[in-house]
Amino acid sequence: MKAKAKQPDVTEERKEQATAWFRTLRDEICAALEKIEDDATGAELPAGRFERKAWDRRNEDGTPGGGGEMALLRGRVFEKAGVNISAVHGSFSEQFRKEIPGASENGGAFWAAGISLVLHPRSPLVPIVHMNTRMIVTSKSWFGGGADLTPAVPFEQDTADFHAALKACCDRHGADYHARFKKWCDEYFFIKHRNEARGVGGIFYDYLDSGSWDADFAFTRDVGQTFLSIYPQLARRHMNDEWTPAQRERQLVKRGRYAEFNLIYDRGTRFGLMTGGNTEAILMSLPPEAKWP
Amino acid sequence: MKAKAKQPDVTEERKEQATAWFRTLRDEICAALEKIEDDATGAELPAGRFERKAWDRRNEDGTPGGGGEMALLRGRVFEKAGVNISAVHGSFSEQFRKEIPGASENGGAFWAAGISLVLHPRSPLVPIVHMNTRMIVTSKSWFGGGADLTPAVPFEQDTADFHAALKACCDRHGADYHARFKKWCDEYFFIKHRNEARGVGGIFYDYLDSGSWDADFAFTRDVGQTFLSIYPQLARRHMNDEWTPAQRERQLVKRGRYAEFNLIYDRGTRFGLMTGGNTEAILMSLPPEAKWP
Repeated sequence: MKAKAKQPDVTEERKEQATAWFRTLRDEICAALEKIEDDATGAELPAGRFERKAWDRRNEDGTPGGGGEMALLRGRVFEKAGVNISAVHGSFSEQFRKEIPGASENGGAFWAAGISLVLHPRSPLVPIVHMNTRMIVTSKSWFGGGADLTPAVPFEQDTADFHAALKACCDRHGADYHARFKKWCDEYFFIKHRNEARGVGGIFYDYLDSGSWDADFAFTRDVGQTFLSIYPQLARRHMNDEWTPAQRERQLVKRGRYAEFNLIYDRGTRFGLMTGGNTEAILMSLPPEAKWP
Repeated sequence: MKAKAKQPDVTEERKEQATAWFRTLRDEICAALEKIEDDATGAELPAGRFERKAWDRRNEDGTPGGGGEMALLRGRVFEKAGVNISAVHGSFSEQFRKEIPGASENGGAFWAAGISLVLHPRSPLVPIVHMNTRMIVTSKSWFGGGADLTPAVPFEQDTADFHAALKACCDRHGADYHARFKKWCDEYFFIKHRNEARGVGGIFYDYLDSGSWDADFAFTRDVGQTFLSIYPQLARRHMNDEWTPAQRERQLVKRGRYAEFNLIYDRGTRFGLMTGGNTEAILMSLPPEAKWP
């Protein structure tokens, strides 16, 4: 009798692939942002460099639960740029698993990996930006993510170019993706108590499981690459321009609104804080300085 | 047959008494803070004055639901001082009434009035302070409130004097009040995700219904008067002292933590924002400027 050939664990292989990709993308983004720091002219400050810091996560029962790596740059173009990757696993609480697809069916066990960044430029002419992509596994498996722009001083061309890049990306993967994910973004990044949008939008998607993991992973990689191709262009467009104190003031107030959104509504932030995540990494999104005048 | 003498509605009378008191206390506090603004020396800025702004509240069905009055001062001792009073009534949502004592028994109908203030001094040597007292009526009726101090640069004497004043106040009304309400304050104003206290504490009480409305109202008035007797002393103690840029930086970071607490945990803030309260009044507690470096 022949021994049965050992089947490779498809899910484990995919987890590794996704984790490796998030790390690669992190490296590429950090390099691109440091290049921007190098290329800025006229600033009195030195070019910023990312400082990396690894952290370990423990589950409630004390067992290892994965971890992540923060990268934080305080520079001359980017007053504060946080780029985080993580790969964590454990078990959702009884309460929380009800809210997560597929989590009730396997006792709450989950695995999640992703990359998340928020960039707070020094200049009010350079837009704040957020990008995140992630892969989640419960008894189901899916991708989620998106990117959205928050200019303090909006330029129509920037907004148009940002949306056009994301539309082209979406169109390469699904005919209805851009319409759906743009709308989702507008709905998600809305500050209800202010009755105002956080910024000018972008795309937001979640629970993406088209039936082809390869296709969904390809889309998620493309979102990351699209961010990398478009945002540096927007930053370079304005980074050497002078701004006025009134524009800086608008930026500081806009950042206050950004903090409100993240602390009150953002699912990732609240989920992380409520489930004992790494506070330093989670709150890296908060602005270096903000005003509520 | 003699007509039955009309009974005065005790609850309505009490609501009026409490509402009038919150207004009187507001006037006294605003006057005391403006006096501090006048008495500060060496500042280049003019003495600040409160600007008042009334607002009306509508219930979800469009009927009048009371309202309030904001008072905001931007001065030389107080970079931002917000003192709000309100008296509102309506019906709690099905969901929310489960969380409120006595609200399920009368179809969710509620009445609430109170005063709430947060003072953000310009000097990091003068402590941030919060004070709030309120009367709530559902099918039950009770008082709640408290005061707590958040120094950026703590002085032991300030903390000791603040606690001593509140203890003396509590001791005048209930032998166990101070121990209970100080502990409650420490537990409530704790920033779990930072594993740190918001400040140095004070007192916090809620659902106070000792059986004597008069006694509970007297205690609540005393809390307000105690705040008025102690906090101006602490402000005057340091308001003319010079501070260092490092102390200002500590203050801006402390203010960031303060914003985190209010936006993530504070019951009044979250309740107000989630139930269509007056955003401008609710978020008057946010610091004029804050940092997350």
